[in-house]
Amino acid sequence: MAIAHELAAQQREISVSEFFAKNRHLLGFDNKKKALLTTIKEAVDNSLDACEEADILPEISVEVIDMQNDRFRIIVEDNGPGIVKKQIPNIFAKLLYGSKFHRMRQSRGQQGIGISASVMYAQLTTGRSAKITSKIGQREQAHYYELHINVQKNSPEIAKEDVVEWKKERGTRVELDIEASYSAGNQSVDEYLKQTAIANPSCTIIYTNPKAEQVIFPRVSSEQPKKPKEIKPHPYGVELGVLMNMLRFSDDRTIHSFLINEFSKVGGEAAKQILENAAIPPQSKPREMSREMIERLVEGIKRTKIQNPPTDCLSPIGQDLIEKGLRKEINAEFYASVTRSPAVYRGNPFQIEVGIAYGGTQPADQPIRIMRFANRVPLLYQQSACAVTKSIIQTAWRGYGLEQSQGAVPAGPCTLMVHMASVWVPFTSESKEAIAHYPEIIREIKLAVQEAGRRLSIYVNKKRRVADQQERVSIFENYIPEVADALARLSGAGKEKIIAAMRKMLEKNKEYIQAHKEAHQVEERKEEQARLGGFEDE
Amino acid sequence: MAIAHELAAQQREISVSEFFAKNRHLLGFDNKKKALLTTIKEAVDNSLDACEEADILPEISVEVIDMQNDRFRIIVEDNGPGIVKKQIPNIFAKLLYGSKFHRMRQSRGQQGIGISASVMYAQLTTGRSAKITSKIGQREQAHYYELHINVQKNSPEIAKEDVVEWKKERGTRVELDIEASYSAGNQSVDEYLKQTAIANPSCTIIYTNPKAEQVIFPRVSSEQPKKPKEIKPHPYGVELGVLMNMLRFSDDRTIHSFLINEFSKVGGEAAKQILENAAIPPQSKPREMSREMIERLVEGIKRTKIQNPPTDCLSPIGQDLIEKGLRKEINAEFYASVTRSPAVYRGNPFQIEVGIAYGGTQPADQPIRIMRFANRVPLLYQQSACAVTKSIIQTAWRGYGLEQSQGAVPAGPCTLMVHMASVWVPFTSESKEAIAHYPEIIREIKLAVQEAGRRLSIYVNKKRRVADQQERVSIFENYIPEVADALARLSGAGKEKIIAAMRKMLEKNKEYIQAHKEAHQVEERKEEQARLGGFEDE
Repeated sequence: MAIAHELAAQQREISVSEFFAKNRHLLGFDNKKKALLTTIKEAVDNSLDACEEADILPEISVEVIDMQNDRFRIIVEDNGPGIVKKQIPNIFAKLLYGSKFHRMRQSRGQQGIGISASVMYAQLTTGRSAKITSKIGQREQAHYYELHINVQKNSPEIAKEDVVEWKKERGTRVELDIEASYSAGNQSVDEYLKQTAIANPSCTIIYTNPKAEQVIFPRVSSEQPKKPKEIKPHPYGVELGVLMNMLRFSDDRTIHSFLINEFSKVGGEAAKQILENAAIPPQSKPREMSREMIERLVEGIKRTKIQNPPTDCLSPIGQDLIEKGLRKEINAEFYASVTRSPAVYRGNPFQIEVGIAYGGTQPADQPIRIMRFANRVPLLYQQSACAVTKSIIQTAWRGYGLEQSQGAVPAGPCTLMVHMASVWVPFTSESKEAIAHYPEIIREIKLAVQEAGRRLSIYVNKKRRVADQQERVSIFENYIPEVADALARLSGAGKEKIIAAMRKMLEKNKEYIQAHKEAHQVEERKEEQARLGGFEDE
Repeated sequence: MAIAHELAAQQREISVSEFFAKNRHLLGFDNKKKALLTTIKEAVDNSLDACEEADILPEISVEVIDMQNDRFRIIVEDNGPGIVKKQIPNIFAKLLYGSKFHRMRQSRGQQGIGISASVMYAQLTTGRSAKITSKIGQREQAHYYELHINVQKNSPEIAKEDVVEWKKERGTRVELDIEASYSAGNQSVDEYLKQTAIANPSCTIIYTNPKAEQVIFPRVSSEQPKKPKEIKPHPYGVELGVLMNMLRFSDDRTIHSFLINEFSKVGGEAAKQILENAAIPPQSKPREMSREMIERLVEGIKRTKIQNPPTDCLSPIGQDLIEKGLRKEINAEFYASVTRSPAVYRGNPFQIEVGIAYGGTQPADQPIRIMRFANRVPLLYQQSACAVTKSIIQTAWRGYGLEQSQGAVPAGPCTLMVHMASVWVPFTSESKEAIAHYPEIIREIKLAVQEAGRRLSIYVNKKRRVADQQERVSIFENYIPEVADALARLSGAGKEKIIAAMRKMLEKNKEYIQAHKEAHQVEERKEEQARLGGFEDE
């Protein structure tokens, strides 16, 4: 028998759950510490998305209970819209299932993997099912499920199903037991929640850590960010294969109406233009177009001038709230923020925001602190692999008053916050820890960072001038006795008198500098106000 | 109506093809240059795996045809066992389908994604179907398929199906049209094929590049590496959830026989031990065990001493062939290689090999060249994210005679090759470009690299001693005239005579050094031979 037959016998389908169970490091479960963060992150991100969808001011409670020997119980509860009964199993116990993937609109989740992956990790490490409670309205019942994933089939299995009493008006509660380890610091749950509060000012988080200490992050703004709108794809950046697929299943009668109905920013005139440039008759039937015609269509699109995509699909944090957030969390002397106007990569609208906090109690002799956010979610791992870091390294910081050695992150008492808002953030892995290096994205980050840098340099330079003056004065002060001595010998005048005179002179000088310094600060503040008022981006 | 119902209406399944089409950078298709490499890599890796399975000496032809405006036609043809008719569509046009994922045995492919991803990329960028021809034996028919992927369903669609004439005895031929760009250099197809030849000495590759130039990499060894054996999982590192799953579907009558049948290195005695340590009666029925019992079982396994996993599932390249490969490709003065004995991470056996080539025509003022391999496949991207690079950076190279600045790759005229062979290589992404940072893996790489470093230092130091001597001599030479002058004046003897005498003296000295030098080299060679003969790893 041909060897090929033996091989054929071994060929079989691999379920996406099996794949990720074996590759769980791709999902952010590569070690116990990270597993704790990832699990909480997925649950909180979903809660925030759900509240945003329903225009509800989020109030989320996160509880982490230490069950000993590396076991932790995680309970995340929100006041969101809740989940309808029949969807609960799929949403929590089926990978690649969700509402956000097929939609062009900014949201934290996009893959339909996250929370199910956490459920799978719980199952792998503790063998316990996920406990879900959800209620969609005052007069509705609260549904309780115990779920696990059939890994071979990537389908939910219901261990228990019940109707329970829940005083809450509506919301969802997730309880998971996982193998994990807890520690504070840079990449901890604490840090993630703190940064989440900065990027989501309208959200209140009540956090109970494994030591049973409660930390509350109250909302700093009581207006929910305006809900981003869903958009259609933009013709630029649409790929041949994707277009073929759209046409094949299109119900539009003509290619002309197809272009108008399926894409954003394509009106009758633009559609006509495209078809002319593609040498395709406007009446052609979408389903009947040949590969060659579609190829011409793609060329036609490239050759036609079309408006940029709409940007109401994005919900940036805003300069004002970024600065508020930084002031709340970081004790610095100088704050500034920049929000770029939206741009496009591969047909996806995106927008970059930057906040900077300088001086104060921040350490001066270390690399600056970088805070990365994607669609308001803090990114705590893989900093060096991220487009944000690359852009910061490629910026010349010496000119802005920070130390920087070749190819390194600048050093100084400074925190730099960068936020990318987009309908589709291209991550370097499913664990969503770093942004991929698309040139358009790097360019925008650089421009925003440079603008923040320029603001910083103005402040730093003034500060330096004043400092220099003070130094000159104090040096002079040190020499007074000798100078006085000399003068006394030369002039024959009394040394004490001369010293007194000189001190007096000095005092005046000091007052002058002090006055100057305050003037500087007032000025600084004025400028800041002005900027916060209505800074216009180039 | 509750908002939850609106949301529910949008919930739907996401096919794995849709997911990767949108995330194609995860599969190595993030830019045109890389797309060319990835496509060829996936096809060649499959051919090599297939030949290995069938104990056939691989002869693979790779043809890249430039079709203008960033379109390339890629044709990869092998002399492998071929693929049975009914499997062809699934293997080439369905993601997550294959024979290697569920099996514990070293192979290049492991995910069941690669080649279908290339087919999908071709379809996305050029809209053309993949053209596959395969024949499984002399007296069999050759089958021809034109395939594309139904992205919504992640299932193959057959555009054309035929029986064709193919003089070849057996083999498979893949033809894909993709959007790509070609350039030579570090991360090029040329480099990939060159390194593939080094790591696969029994393989012959005939490569026709886009300039229609043919390059042939002939096999340097005509014995096929011994085919790795498939093994069962080792009890250490088996996760609770996985174990629960195994038990649930087990046909074994007792837990005792289950342990013996389902795991490697577990005999009657070990099984008995485990169950004692877990306080579980040996006659318990696998299907009826509670979560608590299974948890005790995991603990029991941890507390029982069990032999290391078998290692005939691995197929290292071997010190001898590594050195042969390096000598063939790199013009250096000194070569050495190290093969560690196998180790285990998360229950997976793996083995590290290192080759080093120093001096010769290699540039002295740049970082050393690092060649990374996983299961004989060259890794050309994401060097900085790879466990190999991390291990090299964390090694102190000054002691081994190379320059190295804090936290950097060492510099010097040197090439370092590192190979990881394993039943499951943990990659940092589906594109399989970098090895994840598992501590056990990093430890092994370091130990191997250090051993190579020690060998290097012996050579470098001897070289240095000789060089110093020569320098002293030539310095003396420069001073001859003056010294002679002085002597002449003092002794009254003729200057010419004195110079002649001194030169004579010098010549002797030089001969002496030369002799010495040769002696050193002979010695070196002897030592090398000895090592290649039977170097024993600590």
